[in-house]
Amino acid sequence: MSDDAQLAQRVVDILYSRDLAARTLGMQIAGVRCGYTKLTMRVRPDMVNGHALCHGGLIFTLADTAFAFACNSHNDNTLAAAANIEFLAPAHVGDELTAEATERWRGQRSGVYDVDVTNQSGMRIAVFRGRAAKVHGTVIDPGEEAASRGKP
Amino acid sequence: MSDDAQLAQRVVDILYSRDLAARTLGMQIAGVRCGYTKLTMRVRPDMVNGHALCHGGLIFTLADTAFAFACNSHNDNTLAAAANIEFLAPAHVGDELTAEATERWRGQRSGVYDVDVTNQSGMRIAVFRGRAAKVHGTVIDPGEEAASRGKP
Amino acid sequence: MSDDAQLAQRVVDILYSRDLAARTLGMQIAGVRCGYTKLTMRVRPDMVNGHALCHGGLIFTLADTAFAFACNSHNDNTLAAAANIEFLAPAHVGDELTAEATERWRGQRSGVYDVDVTNQSGMRIAVFRGRAAKVHGTVIDPGEEAASRGKP
Amino acid sequence: MSDDAQLAQRVVDILYSRDLAARTLGMQIAGVRCGYTKLTMRVRPDMVNGHALCHGGLIFTLADTAFAFACNSHNDNTLAAAANIEFLAPAHVGDELTAEATERWRGQRSGVYDVDVTNQSGMRIAVFRGRAAKVHGTVIDPGEEAASRGKP
Repeated sequence: MSDDAQLAQRVVDILYSRDLAARTLGMQIAGVRCGYTKLTMRVRPDMVNGHALCHGGLIFTLADTAFAFACNSHNDNTLAAAANIEFLAPAHVGDELTAEATERWRGQRSGVYDVDVTNQSGMRIAVFRGRAAKVHGTVIDPGEEAASRGKP
Repeated sequence: MSDDAQLAQRVVDILYSRDLAARTLGMQIAGVRCGYTKLTMRVRPDMVNGHALCHGGLIFTLADTAFAFACNSHNDNTLAAAANIEFLAPAHVGDELTAEATERWRGQRSGVYDVDVTNQSGMRIAVFRGRAAKVHGTVIDPGEEAASRGKP
Repeated sequence: MSDDAQLAQRVVDILYSRDLAARTLGMQIAGVRCGYTKLTMRVRPDMVNGHALCHGGLIFTLADTAFAFACNSHNDNTLAAAANIEFLAPAHVGDELTAEATERWRGQRSGVYDVDVTNQSGMRIAVFRGRAAKVHGTVIDPGEEAASRGKP
Repeated sequence: MSDDAQLAQRVVDILYSRDLAARTLGMQIAGVRCGYTKLTMRVRPDMVNGHALCHGGLIFTLADTAFAFACNSHNDNTLAAAANIEFLAPAHVGDELTAEATERWRGQRSGVYDVDVTNQSGMRIAVFRGRAAKVHGTVIDPGEEAASRGKP
């Protein structure tokens, strides 16, 4: 694993450990690379909306989390500035959703990320596009990072 | 209260009673009219993301729920087709967020709704725009509705 | 007219004089205030798409121009960072379109603007939302501006 | 060339011949497949905005046209329902822009298309995502199509 990929993995691990929203919703990390993450989430009975379908907001939250992890994976503190989502098919209780975030463009201070959400049959549930903006600081302190690399 | 407003209130009450996601997140209804709803949500400690801010996905979910209630308030079953959100300022644990959804346009089969999310100081946290698509059926059965009106 | 409104008018006049795209498309200024502009455009025979309707790109261009004038009206050089448009009804050759841009939110470095496009019957053709980002400089040089104010 | 690709080519040729807006702006077809088109446009001096850059509306129009051709290429009459664009870098007079539209998802009645706009150096200028909605009819009449296939 390259240094970049290792750093991305550590950044995402730390963000995930602090992301109580993502953890409360049962999201799991299924893949991390620089500018890329894959998350899964099972639709629970308490995730439905008034039409007994998975709440669109939680589908968005899954995609948004994959986006957040991907755009922070370079270790620059980065926030979502905007996002849009197209809902293509409903998700139901028991469905296992997967969100795959890829970096479509990355500039000096902002980036554009695409996220696809699919279910366990590979059916496309939603497509999401997010715009990220860098803010001050890093996720992992450079000193802490060096120390951690020295560990076995 | 007009018949339309009364119907809107009943539709939203029913959707809210079934919307386990919204209720699990502690959303409260603060206002309902035809094509309009106002919801509140307090940011809990378990709602933060990896940067210790309120997860953008949950801000979206609040706005999306206000949108869903507003676009269903005419008693036609209606689903979100797409949405976009601009994140303007962060929200923190303890903040009391308010989402106000208004109908910007309504056609035969679709509609456009705008939602503003503010905090307890009136600061704008996010603006959201959703596109709704009508599907088959109604939220409240016409017969059931008439019966319900006859009750004391 | 307040100083702010006067400045807005002068900024928009200058931008318009340089905006060859807007002028080539026959756009006219129908109203200017701080953070607000109203433009009109008549749909010409050379503005149709392959379905013989006004090209959606040109409806967007009208809205985008109203947005650009509105977000520059404070005299800070400002560019469009992103935009989204919902097409609600078609426009036809001969239609007189009006785009009205209003400032929905304005922060230190960015802003959100809404534009409504209507036809001569007041029918809503499209709704547009743009995100603006400030860059360096001003539209009117402060010195030039002062000098101009001293002129009769 | 497959029958599908041949049909796509004919549909796009017909749409292009009628699309006076695209032709007035000097767009050229550089590639057509089912659900895919590539267009080029040179930025002319009359295409600038008030900041002396290529007008964002015309960049959108190029992307929107590639999108329109791609979503109609299956020979079902299809209109743009909505679109969003992220402006990543400015374009200047003399630049040769290329828009490449690909089909990201296609359902019974709607579809989602992504368009990338690049300049002659391969630099990304904008990313666009459009939602298409099928309406009644076809671009090419089935009878006319059969007759045309019989021609040398």
